[in-house]
Amino acid sequence: MTTDSGPAQPHKLTSKGQATRARILEHAADLIYTEGVHATNNEQLRRVAGVSGSQLNHYFPNKESLVLAVIDWQAGSVLGFHRSEKFDGFDTIDAFREWADFYVAHGRPFEDGCSLGSLASEIVKTDLDVHEQLAATFEQWRDIFRDGLERMQRLGRLDASADPTRLAHALLAAYQGGMLLAQIARDITPLRDALYAAVDHVATFVTSPDA
Amino acid sequence: MTTDSGPAQPHKLTSKGQATRARILEHAADLIYTEGVHATNNEQLRRVAGVSGSQLNHYFPNKESLVLAVIDWQAGSVLGFHRSEKFDGFDTIDAFREWADFYVAHGRPFEDGCSLGSLASEIVKTDLDVHEQLAATFEQWRDIFRDGLERMQRLGRLDASADPTRLAHALLAAYQGGMLLAQIARDITPLRDALYAAVDHVATFVTSPDA
Repeated sequence: MTTDSGPAQPHKLTSKGQATRARILEHAADLIYTEGVHATNNEQLRRVAGVSGSQLNHYFPNKESLVLAVIDWQAGSVLGFHRSEKFDGFDTIDAFREWADFYVAHGRPFEDGCSLGSLASEIVKTDLDVHEQLAATFEQWRDIFRDGLERMQRLGRLDASADPTRLAHALLAAYQGGMLLAQIARDITPLRDALYAAVDHVATFVTSPDA
Repeated sequence: MTTDSGPAQPHKLTSKGQATRARILEHAADLIYTEGVHATNNEQLRRVAGVSGSQLNHYFPNKESLVLAVIDWQAGSVLGFHRSEKFDGFDTIDAFREWADFYVAHGRPFEDGCSLGSLASEIVKTDLDVHEQLAATFEQWRDIFRDGLERMQRLGRLDASADPTRLAHALLAAYQGGMLLAQIARDITPLRDALYAAVDHVATFVTSPDA
């Protein structure tokens, strides 16, 4: 994506171009989720996004570049949310509780599942060369939690026996698994239970009551 | 599925018929996973399973009956495993540790993910009338854990403050989420971390050292 023959680079686009690109990505993410990567084709995408074949080709010369951009686009939204001031770098147990509260209070997030998790479970099955980027995205997500937990440890808020990587995996798995179970049950309870159990597990390592 | 016009009932089939039905289900599960429910059609299924159209129609008159049978078939395998003597009804913390150990020692289970979870994430998106059966299957899975935890509580092995339903959701979510993360990372670490964190969380409620 760094060569001249690659897809149009978002930062080089006009605002109209960026809007078109975003519209294509939004519909592509939706199609990939509902129809699967294999079944998603240019014709469908052109129709639902209302773009021409040459426009589509300008932004995304092949399926790989499209899927990579969809991953990037969904990742930007999820990672941006986790990096927002709301959670302040996840360096207190309260930030983790707020994170769990957010999904529980959010209403019915399970209706569509986790946008990135659902996309991942679809993409992980394909033979497109996008696994590295998908894996890197989830590593970044995990690292937001891990970095926060490591900072808590440095600040003496978390016991030295805690393993920040392991806890970060447990939190992320609780969210992904809880979201799938909530989607299946059409009820938020499994997600709520999984998130609070994971946060409570982190809390067992908290050393100071005002941490 | 209880009316005469419904699909052929497995228990009424000859052993040859049962083998044909199983072969169709195996290939259908595989197709639904790789291609998605929408993209899976009779023609593909006939070809890969090596059956005629009338055979297919005999066993599964429509897509709904096929998908319901695939859920049943995968559920039988997963629930059967969890009900095996190996785990003895999950009424000790050691049984939960063995359960986690199994997936960690199993080699590379993440290559295909959880057969039932992957199928569920595919089916949950469809508008086929199969959600009730899918939800019931996951409830049965959760109840295997919950029943074990409730028994532990009655036997005084688990503190009265533990919530068996919540812990059961946490365990199942850790498995489903951990499996997805392991698939994405192509590395068992996130699954291992999630499973052991969930089991360790249950262990914090254990009252007796030899429980």
